[in-house]
Amino acid sequence: MPETFRVGLLGHGTVGSAFAALLEARADAIVPVTGMRPELSGVLTRSRGDFEEILAGSDLIVELMGGVEPTRDYVLRAMRAGRHVVSANKQLLSQHGDELWATARDHGVQLRFEAAVAGVVPVIRVLQESLAAAHVERIHGIVNGTTNYILTEMARGGLSYAEALGQAQALGYAEADPSDDVSGRDAAAKMAILARLAFDTPVHLDQVRYEGIEHITADDIAYADELGLGLKLIGTAERVAAGISVRVHPAFLYAGHPLASVHGPFNAVTVESDAITEITMSGPGAGGPQTASAVLGDVISAMIPPATTPEPSQRLAVVEDVESAFYLHMEVADRPGVLAQIAEVLGMQGASIKSVVQHGLGDNARLVMVLHPLLESRFYAAVRLIGQLGFMRSPPRAIRVIDEEFT
Amino acid sequence: MPETFRVGLLGHGTVGSAFAALLEARADAIVPVTGMRPELSGVLTRSRGDFEEILAGSDLIVELMGGVEPTRDYVLRAMRAGRHVVSANKQLLSQHGDELWATARDHGVQLRFEAAVAGVVPVIRVLQESLAAAHVERIHGIVNGTTNYILTEMARGGLSYAEALGQAQALGYAEADPSDDVSGRDAAAKMAILARLAFDTPVHLDQVRYEGIEHITADDIAYADELGLGLKLIGTAERVAAGISVRVHPAFLYAGHPLASVHGPFNAVTVESDAITEITMSGPGAGGPQTASAVLGDVISAMIPPATTPEPSQRLAVVEDVESAFYLHMEVADRPGVLAQIAEVLGMQGASIKSVVQHGLGDNARLVMVLHPLLESRFYAAVRLIGQLGFMRSPPRAIRVIDEEFT
Repeated sequence: MPETFRVGLLGHGTVGSAFAALLEARADAIVPVTGMRPELSGVLTRSRGDFEEILAGSDLIVELMGGVEPTRDYVLRAMRAGRHVVSANKQLLSQHGDELWATARDHGVQLRFEAAVAGVVPVIRVLQESLAAAHVERIHGIVNGTTNYILTEMARGGLSYAEALGQAQALGYAEADPSDDVSGRDAAAKMAILARLAFDTPVHLDQVRYEGIEHITADDIAYADELGLGLKLIGTAERVAAGISVRVHPAFLYAGHPLASVHGPFNAVTVESDAITEITMSGPGAGGPQTASAVLGDVISAMIPPATTPEPSQRLAVVEDVESAFYLHMEVADRPGVLAQIAEVLGMQGASIKSVVQHGLGDNARLVMVLHPLLESRFYAAVRLIGQLGFMRSPPRAIRVIDEEFT
Repeated sequence: MPETFRVGLLGHGTVGSAFAALLEARADAIVPVTGMRPELSGVLTRSRGDFEEILAGSDLIVELMGGVEPTRDYVLRAMRAGRHVVSANKQLLSQHGDELWATARDHGVQLRFEAAVAGVVPVIRVLQESLAAAHVERIHGIVNGTTNYILTEMARGGLSYAEALGQAQALGYAEADPSDDVSGRDAAAKMAILARLAFDTPVHLDQVRYEGIEHITADDIAYADELGLGLKLIGTAERVAAGISVRVHPAFLYAGHPLASVHGPFNAVTVESDAITEITMSGPGAGGPQTASAVLGDVISAMIPPATTPEPSQRLAVVEDVESAFYLHMEVADRPGVLAQIAEVLGMQGASIKSVVQHGLGDNARLVMVLHPLLESRFYAAVRLIGQLGFMRSPPRAIRVIDEEFT
């Protein structure tokens, strides 16, 4: 029996309950990584649970209750009692970071907060570890999924701000009172946290200037499109001659910018420095399961003693014949019945056609199609048969297609 | 005086010499993070240095000599002597990984290898730490910068494969003998390493099927473009019913796929799992300084005892007035001299116009321009003055433009 690692949970809303479910689902998988089995030792909500009791029975406290008070008091008391803390609370960290981090240092405990910024996008870890000694020049981030969703819909559908906001609320991407998101304040808190890590200097939310997207019109977006520009709510933290600048405002990006192709409720962060040029990380910015996954990553890190090399716990079969969608390019004699014969051979192998483009080339024609996924062995069997048909002018050419839906 | 941490370096080619320079440049910045100052204790090249002597004088060995032998022997001897090892050697890890990781476990040392896959893109760390207990479903990666550069140029310029390869060689993105890259073998080695981490199961390079890009024509790329598809050399590692599949082949992506917008010599990896949906990370895939930066991140991690919370070492000023480029949208009376007056006001504040679009609207006109970067205070002074001009039909609207060159 592996040792038990006791996790006390503060808060049981969307993220809290998703975390509790994920912890239970992944507890067995965590044993080979950490040598211990994590277990929920208590949950504090507004209506039930006693903080002192949960603290006494826990090795680590996960704070997902949000807000500044009494959360701050609980987090400080937990660290003073020698407990590691994992938090997703950007308001708390951006307003009381100095006090919290000093307390963590004084009591030799870890304060981890990956989920506070950009959900599952691992920007905190990358700044703290991969880039621990890099000289970061600048961070640009899309760190609020609500506003990115609204701007994406305004650009894509020509919606007004009010229409896009209503749609975001209907889909659960915006709250009934969206002001913290659309004003840029939520993004400002996240940028304060990133700036502190990147530049190793205290930054308070009050020092971050922010503008929101409430005054953006569909017209701005349409005009800028003619200039090759797309609109995003961008958080910036950068070195300037006199120190650093940390700010959030709507900004246009040229199409080649790594953040220009981040659409919908996604978050993304680009870190620039001389040595690395730039790294961009993107992923879903919010959502209970995603945030819970980031919290769990932090819990596991807090459980792990210095890096180990666990032995592989599995020996999975490596499979050779898998399903793929395919692009198929054929030069054929331009005569009736050709497409029907090809389709018949494909159909015999279970291949189904998704789209076709045909171009005449004098007496010949070029036929290009995309097929729905099928086993590669069956696809290549069909290609061999097609290659033997009398009307083929050259061997068919096949390339795989990665055929998936992305938001 | 902080304690010295002695780093022995095997190999002094492009990456090795970049690492040696970076280690020296960042040594002081590493002290507050780790409590120790790293120092190069010896360098082994083909013509100078003695391995046993370097090993005896080092706390950690950085292996950047490449190749499988005698590298494998050196790395094994270093770990058996209790030294941590940081390596960028994908061939070694994909062919002898089991032996190497077992030796690291048996001797309680760390074997770190972020730089072996996707250069500075921190995919190894994210898989090992952030996603330590995630149930990864699939990884898709562009993990070879040479082939991504060639395919990008074929798509952008309509170049043939041979022309694009020649251009890549002239720019240093491809080697004189490019076969390891263009055949897909280099990418296959990296996918073997990623698959092992993601699925916690041994994977050898010999189990990875790969196809290269040598037979791709500009014509394939042009046709597929009509179908909304872009071509990349994609590495895939995914769960399938019977186990896992690990493979590398050219594949078309629909425009919305997160890897579709990764161009030139960049690398990118998308990790999918139920809990996280997907994370995409991208950045420069190769280059001495970038790879050296990834190696240095590993060295720092090996130096750090369990996570600490260092005190901020700086108190940088937070600056409010910074330079920005701006989009400026104005509705004006459509009469001669309007643009000249606006340009004069802008010029007085040092603002210079990058591009202009003008549309008639009956008696009025809409004037939209993008300005080169200038101090925000000066820009807003100009906007106030412009707002007072008699021909303005409504207040001018301003939005920042992030105006940079990206590859």
